[in-house]
Amino acid sequence: MSNLSLGDEIVGRINQLAAISETPELLARLFLTKEHRAAAELILDWMRSAGMSAHLDAIGNVCGRYEGEKPGLPCLMLGSHYDTVRDAGKWDGPLGLLTAISCVADLNRRGRRLPFAIEVTGFADEEGVRYASTLLGSRAVAGTFDESVLGGRDEAGVSMRDALVAFGLDPDHVGAAARARRELLAYLELHIEQGPVLENEDLPVGVVTAIAGATRLAVRLTGTAGHAGTVPMALRRDALAGAAECISAIEEFCRSDEGGLVGTVGYIHATPGATNVIPGQVSFTMDIRAPTDMHRRRAVSDIVRRIEAIAQGRQLSLQIDVTHENRTVPCAPWLRAQVADAIAAEGFRVFELPSGAGHDGMAMIDIADVGMIFVRCRGGISHHPDEHVELADADAGARVLLRVIENFRPRA
Amino acid sequence: MSNLSLGDEIVGRINQLAAISETPELLARLFLTKEHRAAAELILDWMRSAGMSAHLDAIGNVCGRYEGEKPGLPCLMLGSHYDTVRDAGKWDGPLGLLTAISCVADLNRRGRRLPFAIEVTGFADEEGVRYASTLLGSRAVAGTFDESVLGGRDEAGVSMRDALVAFGLDPDHVGAAARARRELLAYLELHIEQGPVLENEDLPVGVVTAIAGATRLAVRLTGTAGHAGTVPMALRRDALAGAAECISAIEEFCRSDEGGLVGTVGYIHATPGATNVIPGQVSFTMDIRAPTDMHRRRAVSDIVRRIEAIAQGRQLSLQIDVTHENRTVPCAPWLRAQVADAIAAEGFRVFELPSGAGHDGMAMIDIADVGMIFVRCRGGISHHPDEHVELADADAGARVLLRVIENFRPRA
Repeated sequence: MSNLSLGDEIVGRINQLAAISETPELLARLFLTKEHRAAAELILDWMRSAGMSAHLDAIGNVCGRYEGEKPGLPCLMLGSHYDTVRDAGKWDGPLGLLTAISCVADLNRRGRRLPFAIEVTGFADEEGVRYASTLLGSRAVAGTFDESVLGGRDEAGVSMRDALVAFGLDPDHVGAAARARRELLAYLELHIEQGPVLENEDLPVGVVTAIAGATRLAVRLTGTAGHAGTVPMALRRDALAGAAECISAIEEFCRSDEGGLVGTVGYIHATPGATNVIPGQVSFTMDIRAPTDMHRRRAVSDIVRRIEAIAQGRQLSLQIDVTHENRTVPCAPWLRAQVADAIAAEGFRVFELPSGAGHDGMAMIDIADVGMIFVRCRGGISHHPDEHVELADADAGARVLLRVIENFRPRA
Repeated sequence: MSNLSLGDEIVGRINQLAAISETPELLARLFLTKEHRAAAELILDWMRSAGMSAHLDAIGNVCGRYEGEKPGLPCLMLGSHYDTVRDAGKWDGPLGLLTAISCVADLNRRGRRLPFAIEVTGFADEEGVRYASTLLGSRAVAGTFDESVLGGRDEAGVSMRDALVAFGLDPDHVGAAARARRELLAYLELHIEQGPVLENEDLPVGVVTAIAGATRLAVRLTGTAGHAGTVPMALRRDALAGAAECISAIEEFCRSDEGGLVGTVGYIHATPGATNVIPGQVSFTMDIRAPTDMHRRRAVSDIVRRIEAIAQGRQLSLQIDVTHENRTVPCAPWLRAQVADAIAAEGFRVFELPSGAGHDGMAMIDIADVGMIFVRCRGGISHHPDEHVELADADAGARVLLRVIENFRPRA
């Protein structure tokens, strides 16, 4: 089987899996639903066809194992997730999972056994759509599943506990999905980039340096509401004019950074919000990400200082709260080097980039060194039906992953 | 009766009138309601006690007339409105109306007749809360009442036509409220400033130069939505960052103007509006006012050019629509001079300022030259229960108005 047919097989299966959806109009495959079940069965079949033993674990992950030169060796774990957001694209998650299965199938067809086992894990929930709690599958594998989420309820009022029972799983034994650090040599994930950087660099694949941590903040500026016609400019304490200055300052600060810092104001609300009233209060959010925690924390504190100065200069009162914080998960240098070698050997320029989006590696870091390979996606679009990967890029990703596997050397 | 007691009488009546409200918790007195009726009857009583003949006109305005040295002379018309917004202050409108009645009462107590009649009109609807159409009372008097609004419905679905009938008025004869230009020597209104300028100048009263025209615009900027973590700053087309730059440009443009220009962005909405998504589209409003139409129009076109440049520089697509436009109503120089003389004679520094808010003079200009006297209100606050006028300032306003009346000389 030529390498090109790896891409063909992967794209064919991407489309088969995308047909398993809550509704035919838009792709949605949520945790512990009948679509989850149908997708799991299909993937388990593909795993077995690839020469793996395969089973569903205690949280609904699909787990395949391809033994090495002798049974029971520690494994290189490959994986990604097979749940989706609502109105999703079909590549986010499945591409990494199906590429891993196709790589193992290729080894199996050649009767190739390696001095380590390969495991492929399809995580049952990464997006966290149904229970508003992300990384449920990989947290269970990493042994960090938080039992308190079992009481959470979906929009229809069904608790996660009841949904597990209905799925045929035991909510009191999710812990059985946990794996020990000694069983894993590394965790390596291939995923679409979900951003436009590789496209901009004209490259099909890239080496991920880290999964960027994120700090989310809620900012509230309070001034004085007033009549749009009667309060002269010099006597205003306009909360929206203040917020505009803050948003520009955030953008300018992040633009002038050369270390991959990104800052986004995604939500804004002005009160009272009438055309003819000067806004007395404005709330907005900030999402700040950087490839290292130190970089992000320094940036957050610099940005907060700038906002404080703007508020003070305008006599606006200010409240800033951190609403969410994720540490940065660095990709292990030794794994990055092996991915880079494989990319170079496939004839591509080696390009490193951080992941701004979250991935299962954020959980897996607790039991293994983590590596990631990004594959270019069209326009950087993701979480949208327009999400797209070219066949040639899916194939390039598979060739790189296969080469990493065949040349894999555990950490010295 | 001393001049001081004019203020006492006015403030006492302000409180009596404020007790007539839809609910006791918050002041609301809307067009063609039973509160409108009760307030009208009370005001008609006060007019009659002041020596005026008084009646309700065809739109529900209260109309009092104090004859001059002989019956049937043309009148100096004084007035303001007695409807309110919801959760209103008690001074906006009633102060001007009750001050006019108290001035006439003072003339009447002294048996003073002037070489012209005085009419006091309490307009039934200026705020336009019930039927989302403003200046209904003064438009009827000016003969510019738009019959098409009769079909409009309030929140409960009651048409203005039915509400007029229920109030005892004939919707087919609103035209009977119209007055002829020859009957009026001028229209002069005293009103609270609704802004902080007089307070800032430490003055109880001011001469209004013009009721500023306003242009309202709706702006929509469209860029590209994207993942807050995966799109580098340099590759973004962030509609909210663009809007922030526009808002700052509007503020800077208006602040650097020395001719009374004001610009307000009161409403903003970012789509999709999630913390972790770069906004792909932002809508916001602009409200631009200036003391002359030429000034305002030039400012609007300069601001629009700046916004176009910002959008172009950021590769955002732009749509700007004018949603509303009001001409500027200049106060007649000869009336401004007589008001200024009265203010100086009362011992106050003469200070001129434009009105950024709309007033009944905007309709009355069609049948009379218009003059306005502003009275300081605390903090510039209006359309709010905290709206407040000091007794001494109400009294100063009354003394000035009385002096204007007694020294009134019709236009040469």
